[in-house]
Amino acid sequence: MNIPQSDKKRIVIIGGGFAGLTLGKKLRKSDYQVVLLDRNNFHTFQPLLYQVATAGLEPDSITYPIRKVFQKYPDFYFRMAEVDRIDADKQCVFTNIGELPYDYLVIATGAKSNFFGNDQVENYSMPMKSIRDSLDLRSLLLQNFEEALIANSVTEKERLMSIVIVGAGPTGVELSGALAELKSRVLPSDYPDLDISQMRIILVDGADKVLPAMSGEASKKAFEYLDKLGVEIKLNMFVKDYDGKRIHTNDGTIESKTLIWSAGVLGNPVSGISLSKEKKENRANRYEIDEFFKLKDHPNVFAIGDVASMATETLPQGHPMLASVACQQGEYLAQNFKNLSKEKEPKPFAYNDKGAMATIGTNKAVADLPGLKTQGFFAWFLWMFVHLFLLIGFRNRAVALMNWIWAYVTYDTGVRLIIRPYKRKE
Amino acid sequence: MNIPQSDKKRIVIIGGGFAGLTLGKKLRKSDYQVVLLDRNNFHTFQPLLYQVATAGLEPDSITYPIRKVFQKYPDFYFRMAEVDRIDADKQCVFTNIGELPYDYLVIATGAKSNFFGNDQVENYSMPMKSIRDSLDLRSLLLQNFEEALIANSVTEKERLMSIVIVGAGPTGVELSGALAELKSRVLPSDYPDLDISQMRIILVDGADKVLPAMSGEASKKAFEYLDKLGVEIKLNMFVKDYDGKRIHTNDGTIESKTLIWSAGVLGNPVSGISLSKEKKENRANRYEIDEFFKLKDHPNVFAIGDVASMATETLPQGHPMLASVACQQGEYLAQNFKNLSKEKEPKPFAYNDKGAMATIGTNKAVADLPGLKTQGFFAWFLWMFVHLFLLIGFRNRAVALMNWIWAYVTYDTGVRLIIRPYKRKE
Repeated sequence: MNIPQSDKKRIVIIGGGFAGLTLGKKLRKSDYQVVLLDRNNFHTFQPLLYQVATAGLEPDSITYPIRKVFQKYPDFYFRMAEVDRIDADKQCVFTNIGELPYDYLVIATGAKSNFFGNDQVENYSMPMKSIRDSLDLRSLLLQNFEEALIANSVTEKERLMSIVIVGAGPTGVELSGALAELKSRVLPSDYPDLDISQMRIILVDGADKVLPAMSGEASKKAFEYLDKLGVEIKLNMFVKDYDGKRIHTNDGTIESKTLIWSAGVLGNPVSGISLSKEKKENRANRYEIDEFFKLKDHPNVFAIGDVASMATETLPQGHPMLASVACQQGEYLAQNFKNLSKEKEPKPFAYNDKGAMATIGTNKAVADLPGLKTQGFFAWFLWMFVHLFLLIGFRNRAVALMNWIWAYVTYDTGVRLIIRPYKRKE
Repeated sequence: MNIPQSDKKRIVIIGGGFAGLTLGKKLRKSDYQVVLLDRNNFHTFQPLLYQVATAGLEPDSITYPIRKVFQKYPDFYFRMAEVDRIDADKQCVFTNIGELPYDYLVIATGAKSNFFGNDQVENYSMPMKSIRDSLDLRSLLLQNFEEALIANSVTEKERLMSIVIVGAGPTGVELSGALAELKSRVLPSDYPDLDISQMRIILVDGADKVLPAMSGEASKKAFEYLDKLGVEIKLNMFVKDYDGKRIHTNDGTIESKTLIWSAGVLGNPVSGISLSKEKKENRANRYEIDEFFKLKDHPNVFAIGDVASMATETLPQGHPMLASVACQQGEYLAQNFKNLSKEKEPKPFAYNDKGAMATIGTNKAVADLPGLKTQGFFAWFLWMFVHLFLLIGFRNRAVALMNWIWAYVTYDTGVRLIIRPYKRKE
């Protein structure tokens, strides 16, 4: 892989998400050589993928070149690579661009969609985990309306104009809200010869409330907001099957050519370091780590972020899969590596719960913060502030802010582009 | 195609480029029903494609949703469609979404790359005519450097780090300049472990000067600028063959895996209304039109923009294929349609030569304006002003301006993203 040998010990980080990127940045002044691997040459700000999918932000605003983050870092190497497997005995990572020995390995490979083993649903539904997923979804949503204009049968029109979102966690709720605003504010002017009131946005969840991981207040208010925006909320409903046109549930069928899957995630472990069957089931396919992020049975191998699950007394299933948690873990582990090189004791991870928030629409958000539960304009303002602050790089922040202000003032964002048409699966 | 019948006569416009879009806009207050067809749901600002290819602007800044342009236009219909053929006898357009009868037809289908019949070059080279082309090129340029990092042979590294641009018209010159700035300002920090001085930017043209269509002063100064920026300029050189790795010319070979083709364009006529062999050769495959934009032998059929060639005394080959010309023609034709409906005489087209300009880099541009030839900072400033003004829609203008100011201040733009990797042809 053409990485120079160095006197320093080598840390290899797999994954440039929030966890891996933070770890890499915090290791700048350390006594290690650092190699970061990612399949993409950019970091993706996943919490805003739904805005790209609903044509509110351009993809370039929520992605950032990894090389640009690490310009001028001494003894730091980035390689765009797909990891095939790890050989923990040989302390070596095997990739599509060659192999790489390590002294310490950090797995920060994040999470993937959980389709609960339903291949039909996996094949025909639209996931929301990458920037390519959201661009595909943006194209599909717009193509649907172009096709609805020329559809001759009533059923076909219904299928094209009904969007079903499965999973009422933050992603599903934010996406439904953004779609409802697109419906009320933008689509009637864009499609004057289409009856947009026929458009349906249907949010489905197996639980008996939306945002089940948040407080009762947040959940109740989010339901109210969505309901007011015209989203049809179907609780206690499970998707059983889907053929690309008709969704079968435990309570009847829904005609739709667009099923968006945000019903859950699984850890995305790397081949070569496997999980026991029990772990897969109880810990959402995440690596079990101790309070120092170490994997059991694998000295020198660590895991952080969504792919890692640290059982604590209050959180026996591990920490929530959130950007803020991943960043904290990256920081902690960097500090521990620095302690290690100075032969200081590592510190066990102390989780600082920063709460959770979700935005449903303009002026409509819910936030559960430590010591404060709030909903409405203030929560929305907070949400915007926090997300802008987290978007790395001044340029992205300024562009996103301008788009948001523009959207707020005009009720009309501009990026309704089908740059790469999405090819439906047959 | 589900277009309502109306008492008004129907004008069908094929193509939403500068010509078709301007015509549609100017027909807002007319006595016609207007139907605009385009294969994309957006207008592309083609003069800035090279900035997307070189990671200076995001694609969403130079594209604009067509539906948004025509919001609230009475009796106006847009359809995203591929035109298969025209039946001029039946006065009908056949498309992939159905057929559409017309009273008047306007062909504004623009131009396509001219590979001079060389299939090998067409297959392996990168064109620069659409937003997808430029995104593919952006991906390929960045992939090349990622691959060069891990290349083991000297020849392979040379092939990956040499970019050959064929055609020293405005597109080729602007692209070479932007690549040279990328080389000097951005790549060394992004790829500290790669020797960027090995990167070659080679501009090839069969003529004996760059920008042959512009004035001697402009041409000379552009050459100087490019030379100073480190672009290797090969004049009187023709590409004979290319296999994806090695370029054969009339004067030796060049090792390169990236050949960008900007050597010329041809009109892009529609099937069903054909051109005579003589027209194909003498008029760059463009429809011959009279001074009212009418096709000979085809009453009720008009052509404007790059696909049309109006022979005049001073310009026997037709007007230059420029955005400003296309806009003028669209405006003129709209006025003539309005005259027609009021039974007024149509006006013959009077061409207003607005000149031409090309930018090579920051502070480095050349402009041939009526009564003024200028080069350097003032030309660059003018170029920026004109292009910002032409970018439709406030939002795009603001985002582009911000990116340009940002690039000017920091010498570093941000969108070096491989969102969809380009798959090389084997």
